[in-house]
Amino acid sequence: MKARVYVSLKSTVLDAQGKTIRSALSGLGYRSVADVRQGKYFEISIEPGVSPEQARREVDTLAQDVLTNPVIETCRVEFDD
Amino acid sequence: MKARVYVSLKSTVLDAQGKTIRSALSGLGYRSVADVRQGKYFEISIEPGVSPEQARREVDTLAQDVLTNPVIETCRVEFDD
Repeated sequence: MKARVYVSLKSTVLDAQGKTIRSALSGLGYRSVADVRQGKYFEISIEPGVSPEQARREVDTLAQDVLTNPVIETCRVEFDD
Repeated sequence: MKARVYVSLKSTVLDAQGKTIRSALSGLGYRSVADVRQGKYFEISIEPGVSPEQARREVDTLAQDVLTNPVIETCRVEFDD
């Protein structure tokens, strides 16, 4: 079983890195890009033998408490069975 | 229209950052985590008026040529209509 956690800046927070990428892309001639926001992505493999419920509970908690800074970021968690 | 680009290290490449996160999580008591790999995530908004085909072509190219280092990384692109 695998879990994927996507952490991105809240839409109200300025994403300087995304803005820089956007302007670099525009300088390279990619004209269809209106905006870029960058985030982090974690692929978590679950120990065999752990129940899906236990894994979900643990990954939801660690995504919100450890991988995300709740002041400026939001996270989304997906599970692959 | 939005595109999401996920860039991760190839599975044959050592992910030192992921290993560090895994050992930190294990120290914090998250026992169901077997492995963590970290990647990057880009959310790209497309200019209104650009055709979906043109946008797809451009995002596929920029994901592979600009956002990914093909020697050590792979990328995955998803589109939201």
